Amino acid sequence: MPAFFDTHRETLEKAVEAAKTRGFWTPYPEVPSKSVYGETAKEDGEAAFQALLGKPFDLDQPNDAGLAGKEDSPFGLALGITYPAATPDTLIAAAKSAGKGWAAASVEDRVGVALEILSRINAQTFLMAHAVMHTSGQSFMMAFQAGGPHAQDRGLEAVAYAYHEMSLVPGAVRWEKPQGKHGPLVMDKTFKVIPRGIALVIGCSTFPTWNTYPGLFASLVTGNPVIVKPHPKAILPLALTVRIGREVLAEAGFDPNVLLLAVDEADAPITQELVTHPDIAIVDFTGSPAFGSWVRAHGAGKQVFTEEAGVNSIVVDSTDNFRGMCANIAFSLSLYSGQMCTAPQNIYVTRDGIETDEGRKTFDEVADGIAAAVDKLLGEPNRALGILGAIQNPATAERVADSRGLGRIVRDSGPVDAEVAGGARTATPLILALNAQDEDVYLAERFGPISFVIATAKTAAAIARAAGSAKSRGAITAAIYSTDEAVIDAASEAFADAGVPLSVNLTGGIYVNQSAAFSDYHVTGANPAGNACLTDAAFVANRFRVATVRRQA
Amino acid sequence: MPAFFDTHRETLEKAVEAAKTRGFWTPYPEVPSKSVYGETAKEDGEAAFQALLGKPFDLDQPNDAGLAGKEDSPFGLALGITYPAATPDTLIAAAKSAGKGWAAASVEDRVGVALEILSRINAQTFLMAHAVMHTSGQSFMMAFQAGGPHAQDRGLEAVAYAYHEMSLVPGAVRWEKPQGKHGPLVMDKTFKVIPRGIALVIGCSTFPTWNTYPGLFASLVTGNPVIVKPHPKAILPLALTVRIGREVLAEAGFDPNVLLLAVDEADAPITQELVTHPDIAIVDFTGSPAFGSWVRAHGAGKQVFTEEAGVNSIVVDSTDNFRGMCANIAFSLSLYSGQMCTAPQNIYVTRDGIETDEGRKTFDEVADGIAAAVDKLLGEPNRALGILGAIQNPATAERVADSRGLGRIVRDSGPVDAEVAGGARTATPLILALNAQDEDVYLAERFGPISFVIATAKTAAAIARAAGSAKSRGAITAAIYSTDEAVIDAASEAFADAGVPLSVNLTGGIYVNQSAAFSDYHVTGANPAGNACLTDAAFVANRFRVATVRRQA
Repeated sequence: MPAFFDTHRETLEKAVEAAKTRGFWTPYPEVPSKSVYGETAKEDGEAAFQALLGKPFDLDQPNDAGLAGKEDSPFGLALGITYPAATPDTLIAAAKSAGKGWAAASVEDRVGVALEILSRINAQTFLMAHAVMHTSGQSFMMAFQAGGPHAQDRGLEAVAYAYHEMSLVPGAVRWEKPQGKHGPLVMDKTFKVIPRGIALVIGCSTFPTWNTYPGLFASLVTGNPVIVKPHPKAILPLALTVRIGREVLAEAGFDPNVLLLAVDEADAPITQELVTHPDIAIVDFTGSPAFGSWVRAHGAGKQVFTEEAGVNSIVVDSTDNFRGMCANIAFSLSLYSGQMCTAPQNIYVTRDGIETDEGRKTFDEVADGIAAAVDKLLGEPNRALGILGAIQNPATAERVADSRGLGRIVRDSGPVDAEVAGGARTATPLILALNAQDEDVYLAERFGPISFVIATAKTAAAIARAAGSAKSRGAITAAIYSTDEAVIDAASEAFADAGVPLSVNLTGGIYVNQSAAFSDYHVTGANPAGNACLTDAAFVANRFRVATVRRQA
Repeated sequence: MPAFFDTHRETLEKAVEAAKTRGFWTPYPEVPSKSVYGETAKEDGEAAFQALLGKPFDLDQPNDAGLAGKEDSPFGLALGITYPAATPDTLIAAAKSAGKGWAAASVEDRVGVALEILSRINAQTFLMAHAVMHTSGQSFMMAFQAGGPHAQDRGLEAVAYAYHEMSLVPGAVRWEKPQGKHGPLVMDKTFKVIPRGIALVIGCSTFPTWNTYPGLFASLVTGNPVIVKPHPKAILPLALTVRIGREVLAEAGFDPNVLLLAVDEADAPITQELVTHPDIAIVDFTGSPAFGSWVRAHGAGKQVFTEEAGVNSIVVDSTDNFRGMCANIAFSLSLYSGQMCTAPQNIYVTRDGIETDEGRKTFDEVADGIAAAVDKLLGEPNRALGILGAIQNPATAERVADSRGLGRIVRDSGPVDAEVAGGARTATPLILALNAQDEDVYLAERFGPISFVIATAKTAAAIARAAGSAKSRGAITAAIYSTDEAVIDAASEAFADAGVPLSVNLTGGIYVNQSAAFSDYHVTGANPAGNACLTDAAFVANRFRVATVRRQA
């Protein structure tokens, strides 16, 4: 057994501490720099990615269903990679068999393996960036950061929480109960962390690693074998992840089937069969509310964690930095073309206008200010492509086109200049103006670069609508702009009650869509946007149980 | 706001520590002694109980459904107490309204209130003992201990776990992310524990306080208003609990409707309406697997914790203390007439007999040895009644009568001498001999003083059967007797895999049915006997969520 735990002990201890103090911390640098990742890391990563294209992916695991995989890059590249496929029964049998040795391992050995996997994934960040970019449609820089170090952070965070909770279970204890004048009753007890069963982690197409790593690593270190089921359009990042994981497991002397990839194609899906299999004990799901509700209903009796979606809001009451506000909102609307579960959709502005550092602004001036800031942000096509990335799913591009008639167009969506975009599927933000009563339009989630500036009576009404929609439809983020502390207090209370984290007066380099590991709780679990929170104790504590043996001393 | 938190801070800190170290600890003495509970506590408790009989119970809470309550003591006493009843909608509206102020309170204020409630319940232990005795049928001594200090321990344990988890969420944090040569990005964040909603705690008739306090106090301190739904035959102990709780809440300046009693009668039950009400967010249930599975199915989407039941086993392989073993098993079968979810039902003995300190014993000699030990234990009627207590439910007495034909009678059940038992409904243990193939008989739970001595081929087969039945039917306890460490190791592994705590070679003053707060995990949550564990982090961590407000510094 390699000394993986010792190698990574300091990182683990810092991670446990960071999760408690919740200040900034990361062991995985987000800068794609030679000084961090190595002199030739950039070229090596690109070459490794190119070498994968157009052939079967080398992954030595149970394979009784031929090859599968039909991924297309939203940037226009044909990936042409196929993966070894297996039936759910085969995967589950392999996981079950491998799970015995994994369950018997010590907490430290399992945690050591997980930390070594994360470390090796980190070393492959340039390759991973290409894999995430050409499946999700994220720009290279975003794919590098969100698909690399930020995803690794989230995985490490889950390991830290799980390790902390497991370490609270003592190994051996002597229990002595006084009996007055008689000698005490004495029992020797041993406690052992035991897994729940086989874990299934269902990935999404937009953040294949960031949203998958928490559940994957939390289930793994708590002793459960893990079957990773990628979205059929974003297999490669998780195939790389599973391959690295299986290498480390084998080196540590475990059956590599502790970690398995379950590949399918959109026209022959296997996810439902996996979810409902009686041997699957834990399900982590990221995806649409439609399939999420199916998973919750059909996973009854299992431990199910979901991150679905919601309708995120910004309430604009007043500001002492109109330009900063407009620029900040513009970036939030543009980043990855609004394809983030954290992206804002509904921007509430009082119809009588707002007070700003530039004097009173009418409703239209606020809407136009945001639109102008988007134009400015995306004025240069290369920069625009770097921020917007590509549209992952053709259905999202169609939704943008279909949404034009839903309100008064404040800013129309368009493609990025074809010379720069090449074969990429692109769409800049569509911004529509609505009235508060147009609830049918804005209370539905319109995934992609579609947002609404909504005229409301007063700020209190706007807060009530935004918090109300979070309660009824779910929300993952919310923001408010106000110079009035009483308004901020009221919003803080309303959004807390609705279970949404609130960002206040963001005008600088932090955006409402960003969620930092070890500090921001991503999804509260307290509204319909999801029942999971990345990461808190509840996300890990029920992935293991405790077995006791007690005997008279 | 009274300084309840400060008053009880030391108890809390010790409880948090005890839950981690899991040695023996309790702040609530289990001895019904004047020196502990006060010179007149015994007489005061009895007088207070007598004063409650035959009249409406004084509980000032919403009451739009008249009076309800039809409790009969299994010892023959007519209680004649009625309680203010309310419709589910009325209770939920009251809880919702009261919940706002409770959610806004600090963790320390809520925990302080809970600890004060427990302290006042402890001071009323003599009264509670009568209440538990005359609803559950437990003997006075058992009702005093299990219904009093041991239940209070379990409540305190839940408070300690919840406090520990909540205290890991920091209140306010400055987050500083370095930006190379530029100044850091700085955010000020505040985190607040928020409740999930209204909690429902459904009590049982056999351990009305012990099984109710963990869920009640865990939900309460995490900010959720709690509706306590007692079993219609065991209302009084929880009515006393709720009354004390409401007093403390009011003294602390909270709306007492944070804690409400939901009373019904067996022929007009309201539990299902409560469970399925959309405003109920958390359900704690103790009771039968039949109703438990209904609660799990209809509580989908809510946080549901259940303690149901299972088939508990003892495997007898060999012993170096045959008399001690027989005496220990005899006590486990007799205590509270087997009406414990922890009581053993199936005793596996190899059909070729076992090695003992008294030489080889045949299967029949082992069965007869246990039967003789029961006879000896219960030979004196007063002592018998003190151990057996009364049969809570007439259906249990019928089940004993109906079970006589299920196998060869090794020891017949009978009543305790009527002169001693008076009007009490009593039944001594029925012990039947079976063969391993009689699975239809012994794999069903036969609640009450009914047990089976089952002849098996070898010990390995016995372990496999016992662990297998735990996996398929659920089990809360298991025990093995063996002088062979290899057999004990094999049993430890098999029962851990089946999610059952294992007691080894108990021959002294500890019994397999006993589960000590702060040390023994009661129900692992890893087999069908229940999904809850009293108490671990998983039992508390998902009763609250975290709301964030972040702003640029």
